[in-house]
Amino acid sequence: MSKYGMYVKFTAIAGGRDALAAILMEAAAGMDGVDGCEIYLVNVSETEPETVWVTEVWRDAEAHQASLRAEGASEMIGRARPLISGVEQIKLSTLGGKGV
Amino acid sequence: MSKYGMYVKFTAIAGGRDALAAILMEAAAGMDGVDGCEIYLVNVSETEPETVWVTEVWRDAEAHQASLRAEGASEMIGRARPLISGVEQIKLSTLGGKGV
Repeated sequence: MSKYGMYVKFTAIAGGRDALAAILMEAAAGMDGVDGCEIYLVNVSETEPETVWVTEVWRDAEAHQASLRAEGASEMIGRARPLISGVEQIKLSTLGGKGV
Repeated sequence: MSKYGMYVKFTAIAGGRDALAAILMEAAAGMDGVDGCEIYLVNVSETEPETVWVTEVWRDAEAHQASLRAEGASEMIGRARPLISGVEQIKLSTLGGKGV
């Protein structure tokens, strides 16, 4: 049974990457208590200095959707939004492997 | 201390995706015994039918390099190579989060 995965590419405003990464790391820390969140990793790119990649794996799409409605989510999104100039998403079906 | 991460995009030959994903899932199963491998996930794409994405997080670059020299690695790479028409890599520094 595959899981609901994605790579999310955030492009920060000039000079905003580290502040954005810090907010996303806060979000990651909050994921411990979030039902159905199995992987939430924050990465920076070695080749694109304004990019933050987030690796996500969820039990299913419903768990992911519910997390966006959870308490604190909209407040965090609100704090991150001014630092973001672009968002792209690679949607995945995670078949399995080491880590889930 | 960030970790050594990457997203590896394999483009399979026409009709070869599932066979390639199966070999990569074998590789993932073997990662349990591989020192320094923290995440090795096999994903298929919802929008690109011939694509397999592998999410990797390693303790450091040395651990990743050593895994390529490990027993069985070259044999597995040899089995996968005929099924692969292209490989792209997004190199990452994994700052942290849920799952590592």
